[in-house]
Amino acid sequence: MAARSGEFELIARHFAPIAQSDPAALSLKDDAAVFSPPAGHEVVVTTDALVADVHFRSIDDPDLIAKKVLRVNLSDLAAMGAKPGGVVLSAGYNRDLSDEWVEQFAKGFGQDCKSFGVSLWGGDTVVTPGPTFFSLTAFGYVPAGRALRRDMAKPGDVLAVTGTLGDAALGQAVLNDEFPDLDKDLAAYLQDRYLLPKPRLDESAVCAAANTRLAAMDVSDGLAGDCRKICAASNVGLVINRDAIPLSDAAKSIVDVDESQWERVLAGGDDYELLIAGSPDDIAALGDMVTVIGGVTDEVGTVSLVGVDGKTAELADSGFDHFK
Amino acid sequence: MAARSGEFELIARHFAPIAQSDPAALSLKDDAAVFSPPAGHEVVVTTDALVADVHFRSIDDPDLIAKKVLRVNLSDLAAMGAKPGGVVLSAGYNRDLSDEWVEQFAKGFGQDCKSFGVSLWGGDTVVTPGPTFFSLTAFGYVPAGRALRRDMAKPGDVLAVTGTLGDAALGQAVLNDEFPDLDKDLAAYLQDRYLLPKPRLDESAVCAAANTRLAAMDVSDGLAGDCRKICAASNVGLVINRDAIPLSDAAKSIVDVDESQWERVLAGGDDYELLIAGSPDDIAALGDMVTVIGGVTDEVGTVSLVGVDGKTAELADSGFDHFK
Repeated sequence: MAARSGEFELIARHFAPIAQSDPAALSLKDDAAVFSPPAGHEVVVTTDALVADVHFRSIDDPDLIAKKVLRVNLSDLAAMGAKPGGVVLSAGYNRDLSDEWVEQFAKGFGQDCKSFGVSLWGGDTVVTPGPTFFSLTAFGYVPAGRALRRDMAKPGDVLAVTGTLGDAALGQAVLNDEFPDLDKDLAAYLQDRYLLPKPRLDESAVCAAANTRLAAMDVSDGLAGDCRKICAASNVGLVINRDAIPLSDAAKSIVDVDESQWERVLAGGDDYELLIAGSPDDIAALGDMVTVIGGVTDEVGTVSLVGVDGKTAELADSGFDHFK
Repeated sequence: MAARSGEFELIARHFAPIAQSDPAALSLKDDAAVFSPPAGHEVVVTTDALVADVHFRSIDDPDLIAKKVLRVNLSDLAAMGAKPGGVVLSAGYNRDLSDEWVEQFAKGFGQDCKSFGVSLWGGDTVVTPGPTFFSLTAFGYVPAGRALRRDMAKPGDVLAVTGTLGDAALGQAVLNDEFPDLDKDLAAYLQDRYLLPKPRLDESAVCAAANTRLAAMDVSDGLAGDCRKICAASNVGLVINRDAIPLSDAAKSIVDVDESQWERVLAGGDDYELLIAGSPDDIAALGDMVTVIGGVTDEVGTVSLVGVDGKTAELADSGFDHFK
């Protein structure tokens, strides 16, 4: 964690207070942090890079951006059934950003670290002539051998999902003024789903505690593409019933008047819900926490969508092309 | 670790083969990696961000860049006395980079992972309209409570350093054609020291095994600035004898004819040598591995340089300003 010009002061002023409570961070004064998983636990590690105006909107509030950077990584921990421990943050701030921007970013980051019980263990701060970027690495703990994985789905399993899908992609469209006539409360709901994802840590803990064979991942890139990853890892196929996909009132109000918006529900990313496959009994045991949306087949690599009229089509990553 | 357009294929083709040997990586198919430190050990974690044409030269060979990205992080592990375990790599490739560039990068990265016994556990690959950037997070293991830290120096300690200082900064100057008359072998030596740092992992292991009170860090930002960090962390002062600073034949041939080049030795970064403070006996026990260059004082926060003529000056981060 090399310090460049001005970095040391920046860290001390804005980030060290966030880190002070955890001895692992060594007060951010060292080259590295030191930590241990609790006895009988393994370390789960995940990393996500986010670039301004590619993965987040640079015009958004810095504190919201900070929270998104943290939360997308916590969602990856949730996908593995891990309880968050700490994070290290690499930040490349565009050279024209103000100190106030960084201060607001640090403030939001600190608030979210506190509310999710996560410690900032260190990082690296650099200045870039290009777009601002962040790379967060998050660490969580899971009882040894109990991490949720993508490669555990079997033909005959059912496929379920937490929460509702499509909200974030529709929220991004709202922010781009694509639905000017949408009810203000519904619009605000969708925007919030895009700007401030809620990692499914509680639901993840329930899955991990169930101690049954469950395959899991988070829906970050869109249902279609993420289903394909479960297929690849588990060597299976998936079939999804479009009618069964849980929608928020806001999303429903949009797809009811514009059928083409289903593409956003099926292929839009950033929802950060959990996609879970398991035996019908094991999924039923999860109760109201999830909605069953389909099943696992032995048609390796094929993700099929059963439409409202009962017709089946192969689901492309971009959404659905056309029914057969 | 969300996959963006094309990322999944890129990872599969170039990076998955590097990761295949370690089960922690879950074949890079999951959201995260899972690992455990050996019994009785803690995890040391460090992260470094590098931006093209800020921290590395984009015109250099991609395989050399890859090795530098890895090695600067391994040097941070060395600074903590940790044995490398695995790494996760966030990469933001400029959208105009060729697939061959990425392939060469992955090749160099894989070679170095192998030679340092490090596993690639995962990462995130994105495309950016700005300069290419990398953020590597490295994990090492250290016996519990034995990590080397910056805050362990005490007045009366001696200050020592591995290898030679100034080579990397002078090597960068060579690459910028600042010493056209320099002997070709010496020039090549200096360039290599800049392009391909050698993390002091063996020396670090000796320090950690000594199990004595040693303060340590790696010289990544230049001797002057890095000394100041030991002062801040340990609440001490430092005094350095310029005459005692170990120089390579190449560096000596430069400063002997141009006194002003001492500034590069004192303030230039990228040497990745270890800076170690400890009792005279404990440092002596390290033998030929280190050279004593000064001592630790109770003048908190002051880094002094004793010049060739015995005069003392305060050493600024930028090198030395002027003697009193």
